[in-house]
Amino acid sequence: MRADVQDAVNRVDQQRLWRRLTEMAGIGAIPGGGVNRAAFSKEDIAARKLLVSWARARNFTVAVDAIGNLFIRRAGTDPRAAPVMTGSHMDSQPRGGRFDGIYGVLAGLEAIEAIEQAGVKTRRPLELVAWSNEEGGRFAPCTMGSAVYTGARRLTEFLEVTDNDGVALEDALARTLAALPAAEQRALKAPAAAYIEAHIEQGPLLEREGRTIGVVTGIQGLRWFNVEIFGETAHAGTTPLAARKDALREAIAAIGALHELTRDASDTLRFTIGRVLVTPNSPNSVPSHVMFSVDVRHPVAATIARLGEAIEPAVRKAVTHCSVKVTPTLRDDPCAFDPAVVDCVERAAQSLKLAHRRMPSGASHDAMYLARVCPTGMIFVPCERGISHNEAENARPGDLAAGARVLTAALLELAGQNRDS
Amino acid sequence: MRADVQDAVNRVDQQRLWRRLTEMAGIGAIPGGGVNRAAFSKEDIAARKLLVSWARARNFTVAVDAIGNLFIRRAGTDPRAAPVMTGSHMDSQPRGGRFDGIYGVLAGLEAIEAIEQAGVKTRRPLELVAWSNEEGGRFAPCTMGSAVYTGARRLTEFLEVTDNDGVALEDALARTLAALPAAEQRALKAPAAAYIEAHIEQGPLLEREGRTIGVVTGIQGLRWFNVEIFGETAHAGTTPLAARKDALREAIAAIGALHELTRDASDTLRFTIGRVLVTPNSPNSVPSHVMFSVDVRHPVAATIARLGEAIEPAVRKAVTHCSVKVTPTLRDDPCAFDPAVVDCVERAAQSLKLAHRRMPSGASHDAMYLARVCPTGMIFVPCERGISHNEAENARPGDLAAGARVLTAALLELAGQNRDS
Repeated sequence: MRADVQDAVNRVDQQRLWRRLTEMAGIGAIPGGGVNRAAFSKEDIAARKLLVSWARARNFTVAVDAIGNLFIRRAGTDPRAAPVMTGSHMDSQPRGGRFDGIYGVLAGLEAIEAIEQAGVKTRRPLELVAWSNEEGGRFAPCTMGSAVYTGARRLTEFLEVTDNDGVALEDALARTLAALPAAEQRALKAPAAAYIEAHIEQGPLLEREGRTIGVVTGIQGLRWFNVEIFGETAHAGTTPLAARKDALREAIAAIGALHELTRDASDTLRFTIGRVLVTPNSPNSVPSHVMFSVDVRHPVAATIARLGEAIEPAVRKAVTHCSVKVTPTLRDDPCAFDPAVVDCVERAAQSLKLAHRRMPSGASHDAMYLARVCPTGMIFVPCERGISHNEAENARPGDLAAGARVLTAALLELAGQNRDS
Repeated sequence: MRADVQDAVNRVDQQRLWRRLTEMAGIGAIPGGGVNRAAFSKEDIAARKLLVSWARARNFTVAVDAIGNLFIRRAGTDPRAAPVMTGSHMDSQPRGGRFDGIYGVLAGLEAIEAIEQAGVKTRRPLELVAWSNEEGGRFAPCTMGSAVYTGARRLTEFLEVTDNDGVALEDALARTLAALPAAEQRALKAPAAAYIEAHIEQGPLLEREGRTIGVVTGIQGLRWFNVEIFGETAHAGTTPLAARKDALREAIAAIGALHELTRDASDTLRFTIGRVLVTPNSPNSVPSHVMFSVDVRHPVAATIARLGEAIEPAVRKAVTHCSVKVTPTLRDDPCAFDPAVVDCVERAAQSLKLAHRRMPSGASHDAMYLARVCPTGMIFVPCERGISHNEAENARPGDLAAGARVLTAALLELAGQNRDS
């Protein structure tokens, strides 16, 4: 590793990173050590102001775009060069943890600050971005900021989306933008030379294998469905079983069929029924309606496509007395990251002698949209027992700093550094 | 059939009964033709006042006991004789129908009024009762009024029970009693010579077989359980299936085992899972906790006892990765009605040439508690498609009047009539 890169890496400050994570965790803190920081909420605004205050202390410039994505820029030596970007998101799940998203933002700040402190000049600008509304918990869908930034979706599609209190996204966004009046306006779809996102793994593999760094090769494909079974309610005491149209009994048969369909000896496939709503949901009433969610994921495009097609027929075959409706609600095809960026992250981990492995991301991330417009990669660090989207989410300060060091080295390689001396 | 009995039966007025059912259905009416008349609510008070106004118009006496059970009495010729009672309840499910309970009260009023109009004197008093809080929807548990009246439970057990708004039963009951100041006070556990309750079947058998009268032989036994499966939440995209403790997947295995356990070729057994609660209930989170209700019923004491014992072992055997908690929440042993009352109801249906059948009651009723203290029976009439505990509950005026005629004849036989002429 070149001495100037090593110098910058050495300036990554584990204490500072941890202190900032802790300070951010205080914004929207909930019992159990978690965070509730909904997109465009007053907690989101407070987090943005805190981030901007740290950026301004280093004289980095601050900009926002039309959907509120927040950009913090350290200038490069070539004024015409597109930036190398890093970042993640600052919003959280309603009962979220202290690391999901915010770690990628603060690791990015730590990297750029370490590079600044080491006085390493880069040809390309370095840009930290905090994407708006990645979680989608308040305003659906998720990964909204990166989808709009990259042109995959249009802002106007989302302005009328309302939260559970009836607040329109347009109004919440306007209040958020107004809260950062000194920020420059930045265009959507501005070109980027590359993008690297650091994130906790949100799964158990790194911890289980005792590795510090996941070199992320891409994001697995995903299909979501809502399956509805329509039966007929009846009195639990009086109606013979043969006379029932029991929506729950048939839903269970359907779920059994889906378990068969999704058997995978290699344990690569992910299949989850996470949400079940039963109507009328009373102990002595035969259920008239059941809705359950299906979440199926696989890194291989052909496999996820085949599974996606097979869900509805499997449900229909299993349900005999009730009627069925299957609604696809989300579809993300598998995304493969640019080999140059993947190799760059791997080289950085190797140089720093950190135990690492290549792995696909099981979860979706803003990097999925960035990969459509520029060479993209991700860096994973372990989290405790793989728990995420949960107050109990946890990670070790040393692992978090290691991820920021890998990020620092990779950003410098991608941005083209030359020592200011 | 004796001429005086026939005269009284002939005075049962289908139009009057239907008009009163319709007027009662207006108290607490909800969209879809249903009724929401919670126990001790202002709707309950309004229904009581209306019933009392009809009773006073005939100079029947009105009394209440300490739990608000409302008694309407037509005197007999023997001042020392215990009354023959009939009745049901006026409270409803939150989204209840227009016939459940209130039909038994108004059929009883119709019978006593017809007997009064025919001038038939009875040795025993005839007493119509509207039991308090049969449904238990606002203040748990159900069949509270009859349980307290018969001494099966004590009023003091229930005074501090609160509804969802934090109102204590004691206060709601006091307001209800104060609303009927002219009523006499009646002791709990006053002796009764017999009790007959008319009710819609709440099941599909009578309608399906084209019969008008169900001669109810008893109430089947019932066991309720809450089954809880404790697993661990995890990210749906990242956590390999082999590493999960998926509470829903294991709950489904447990339910499958219970379906096996409760197979019954004779279709006598009733088994229902009506309520399922999943935590966190999010499409991309592996469920950490599932609670489901079990409702199992059978008319044979030995069978329901065996099933009750077998539920927990079956669940535990099916669940391998999660932990299990099974909580019994309700236990009613099968109740057999007094053969003398069952025969009396059957004779009345035969005399009136009404198609009838003997059948157990699938649902619980106040008659279950009355059967502990006096000879008891029930009369069922068909309801549309067996639908009950639902706004769509429906019944035909002719069937409802037929049930009141059977009740009239049976009450006269039990009360010992002699013509006033």
